[in-house]
Amino acid sequence: MTHDMQGFFFPRTATGRSSLIPAPPWSYSGDLLTVEYRTDPARVAELLPAPLELAPEDPGAVALIWADWQSCSSSREELLDPVRSQYKECFVVVRCSFEGQTYSRCVYIWVDKDFAIARGIHQGYPKKLGSMWQTRPMAFPHASPQLAPGGAFGATLAAGDRRLADAVLTLTGPSDTNGFVNGHPMAHHRVYPDIAGHGDAYAELIESGGAEFEGGQAWQGDVELNLYDSPTEELSRLSVEEIIGGYYRQVGVVWNGGRTLARLSTD
Amino acid sequence: MTHDMQGFFFPRTATGRSSLIPAPPWSYSGDLLTVEYRTDPARVAELLPAPLELAPEDPGAVALIWADWQSCSSSREELLDPVRSQYKECFVVVRCSFEGQTYSRCVYIWVDKDFAIARGIHQGYPKKLGSMWQTRPMAFPHASPQLAPGGAFGATLAAGDRRLADAVLTLTGPSDTNGFVNGHPMAHHRVYPDIAGHGDAYAELIESGGAEFEGGQAWQGDVELNLYDSPTEELSRLSVEEIIGGYYRQVGVVWNGGRTLARLSTD
Amino acid sequence: MTHDMQGFFFPRTATGRSSLIPAPPWSYSGDLLTVEYRTDPARVAELLPAPLELAPEDPGAVALIWADWQSCSSSREELLDPVRSQYKECFVVVRCSFEGQTYSRCVYIWVDKDFAIARGIHQGYPKKLGSMWQTRPMAFPHASPQLAPGGAFGATLAAGDRRLADAVLTLTGPSDTNGFVNGHPMAHHRVYPDIAGHGDAYAELIESGGAEFEGGQAWQGDVELNLYDSPTEELSRLSVEEIIGGYYRQVGVVWNGGRTLARLSTD
Amino acid sequence: MTHDMQGFFFPRTATGRSSLIPAPPWSYSGDLLTVEYRTDPARVAELLPAPLELAPEDPGAVALIWADWQSCSSSREELLDPVRSQYKECFVVVRCSFEGQTYSRCVYIWVDKDFAIARGIHQGYPKKLGSMWQTRPMAFPHASPQLAPGGAFGATLAAGDRRLADAVLTLTGPSDTNGFVNGHPMAHHRVYPDIAGHGDAYAELIESGGAEFEGGQAWQGDVELNLYDSPTEELSRLSVEEIIGGYYRQVGVVWNGGRTLARLSTD
Repeated sequence: MTHDMQGFFFPRTATGRSSLIPAPPWSYSGDLLTVEYRTDPARVAELLPAPLELAPEDPGAVALIWADWQSCSSSREELLDPVRSQYKECFVVVRCSFEGQTYSRCVYIWVDKDFAIARGIHQGYPKKLGSMWQTRPMAFPHASPQLAPGGAFGATLAAGDRRLADAVLTLTGPSDTNGFVNGHPMAHHRVYPDIAGHGDAYAELIESGGAEFEGGQAWQGDVELNLYDSPTEELSRLSVEEIIGGYYRQVGVVWNGGRTLARLSTD
Repeated sequence: MTHDMQGFFFPRTATGRSSLIPAPPWSYSGDLLTVEYRTDPARVAELLPAPLELAPEDPGAVALIWADWQSCSSSREELLDPVRSQYKECFVVVRCSFEGQTYSRCVYIWVDKDFAIARGIHQGYPKKLGSMWQTRPMAFPHASPQLAPGGAFGATLAAGDRRLADAVLTLTGPSDTNGFVNGHPMAHHRVYPDIAGHGDAYAELIESGGAEFEGGQAWQGDVELNLYDSPTEELSRLSVEEIIGGYYRQVGVVWNGGRTLARLSTD
Repeated sequence: MTHDMQGFFFPRTATGRSSLIPAPPWSYSGDLLTVEYRTDPARVAELLPAPLELAPEDPGAVALIWADWQSCSSSREELLDPVRSQYKECFVVVRCSFEGQTYSRCVYIWVDKDFAIARGIHQGYPKKLGSMWQTRPMAFPHASPQLAPGGAFGATLAAGDRRLADAVLTLTGPSDTNGFVNGHPMAHHRVYPDIAGHGDAYAELIESGGAEFEGGQAWQGDVELNLYDSPTEELSRLSVEEIIGGYYRQVGVVWNGGRTLARLSTD
Repeated sequence: MTHDMQGFFFPRTATGRSSLIPAPPWSYSGDLLTVEYRTDPARVAELLPAPLELAPEDPGAVALIWADWQSCSSSREELLDPVRSQYKECFVVVRCSFEGQTYSRCVYIWVDKDFAIARGIHQGYPKKLGSMWQTRPMAFPHASPQLAPGGAFGATLAAGDRRLADAVLTLTGPSDTNGFVNGHPMAHHRVYPDIAGHGDAYAELIESGGAEFEGGQAWQGDVELNLYDSPTEELSRLSVEEIIGGYYRQVGVVWNGGRTLARLSTD
């Protein structure tokens, strides 16, 4: 019925030009500041609807990741009007098991642009608006840490005019990894509540991952991490039992769709 | 599969407390500044996917509506943390015909909060983030028009760091109506693009309207209206051929779901 | 030397049209939510440079005031482009004594527009940017308290992505006053640090007050108030020892300059 | 009179901790995108109060500069809470002559943080709030130009919900310079309007420049530049007659005060 309309996402029009986001592939260049820690696995299990299960190893591992992104569609036109290409985000990843495979799963995420929210709805990321800041490694050190031992990077997250998290990562040296929690394909739910109030009109479990990936030297470091309560958030419920590590890495990524793992009952 | 999880919208968790929005009903108190005008009906037709058709009378009529809202769920807790209850919006409504009935239809809309975006996804409003301002009728006239003849109210819309529209409404007197374009039940599409890139995973046409409505005295007035181009918007394509009228009204509304008019092929 | 340039404030140009603010008088229509409480008078005294002294009666009284403003210059043109006329603020007022007279004094203040910052620099208000929200008494009660017994109004303040204060005022009935702490002429310092680093280039103590004032019925109520710490703020140092009262009032005000009480040594 | 109070800027308190800005020196690491062009020298002359005069050579030259900054005080603590250290700005520089010396002079500037406004008041920069965006050269090219021939960088400026300027710089190769208009010490006015409305209470012409400077390889390129009208801005009055060049450079800077060139009559 909408086949005569153009536009990947809403609004759909005769030309499709005003769609909030164009069709994938979507490309990203960004800086990632990752903090990994262990929480009570029971708190992770609460976020895994059946038949998802805890990952078999280190099931309480959590990654809290800040990302400072520049992004674009295949036209790359957003890069020349950068209010349309730059955004910041902070997201929380756990792991889970589905049919014997281990997946990563984003359980909370905040971004600061509407096009990022729309991409998240498509990908199954539960995006809200937030205010995120992370120290940048500028070219000159006058007001900047460097990507070198001793470089100290701060990162903060706020939403609803409350601070939700802040971290400081002090680099100690190069790292073979950028952490392990966010290293699997993502297993996300995509749901659309029924307009008449009877559960979901549509629900599925999907898998997706990067179509391309390139990364620079990863750095590791010492971490200070604080989580704060909010009446509308549950991040602090994933309380910090033990810091695993902290990492900094610059990356380039392309995302180009995923596949359905399971269509879900909407009763 | 997500039946063991709580939360009307994402993120879904064990408690549902962090859901971006709670389940309806949703209540609203607000001030509406409405401008109605005629555009070329062919431009309206472009926004009506078959089998929607132009309304039989005055098919080129458009309403551009600014709204300054306070809103809450049935708990009313958002009212005491007003960053969670206040938002502004500007939206564009046309009319259409489906199976012999006339419907209103929101074709473009901008809001300034994430909870408003989420409600719009549920209701089929194609919401983007924008920056909207409208003059308020404050209690004292030192820096305020009054709701009385001669009262002049400005309204502006911007998105992507570009102004898209501005209007001035100068009241001439009371009005029997608040316009007619937004006076029907809404006929909206709800679509969810397929994760693998094959059209839509889900698509339906739905109907919804207010479950409760109360309105004060409507005012009418003279209108100046300007629409501006933007590479990412198509509002200015609905060019102003003739001003119909301008209106100001304070209202209270409850929204509590709708119903599916047609499930749509997703091929 | 700048006499051939126009503009009350910077930038000064041939026409003065781009000045961040025009010359006074400045007019305001707004809603005020006031919380008055007692703190340790020693904490107030810390904010009173000699020869300012504590007020002789109730010297530890503090007013924390949220204001939702619409404002304009004498041209009133800002009212038709309301991004230029509406702003929110939260400010902290104490009292002091100078040469036997009691003055009010704003010791902290946050606003959300640049024109409001500029006015504050002129008036001696120590303005920073913040995010302020206060519940509005909308025309219809669907999502709004009313100005009547039982009406509950929330107010919040954040800056630097941290919440600094929140309050709930539940109205109990009409009030003869809107509080007493902010009821005197203001005694403010205006200072301009020396460009070469030698103290202040300019410093004076000034007095100013409203040139016109009109107010509606004041309401009083019960108050809950929380102050939160921040590394860059000292509001929480004015800790709440005892709530005096809470008030809500709609007002219209004109401000049109003040007078120098004392030119201060800049050594 | 304020000598018993601490704090470089307002608010001044017993500890000085909440001062909007600490005392200089202030350090900056940033990326500069510069567009230089010629306008009618008469339009530059309008912005030069006597006895400032047009620069003797190329008097109509204008630099429009976007800067993406990270900044801090000597404590460097802002770097770990980056909402307090990062900001963006766009500023307009012309040249002038005073007592036989050529100076640079910032005539318009927009920033997006309050601490940047406060520094500007101290330094004589006529800062307003705006929304600025410039394409960043990220580490990986997936969604980023590179600092190399063909790299295309966009930059935009908006204020008051109107776009004021946008530019695209397409790099052609390395450059010996980063332009010449912003290459002299700055000659700025510092003025404080009188509280009683009689002209300025304080006015001086000051000189300042960087206490330290380090810069990377400068790049030059082809430029597209558009300026847009606004009722509250005069940037477009400096209309583009001829593009001189475009440049990109990463820098580190320290600013540590200036000196008074002339105290001005305040009659």
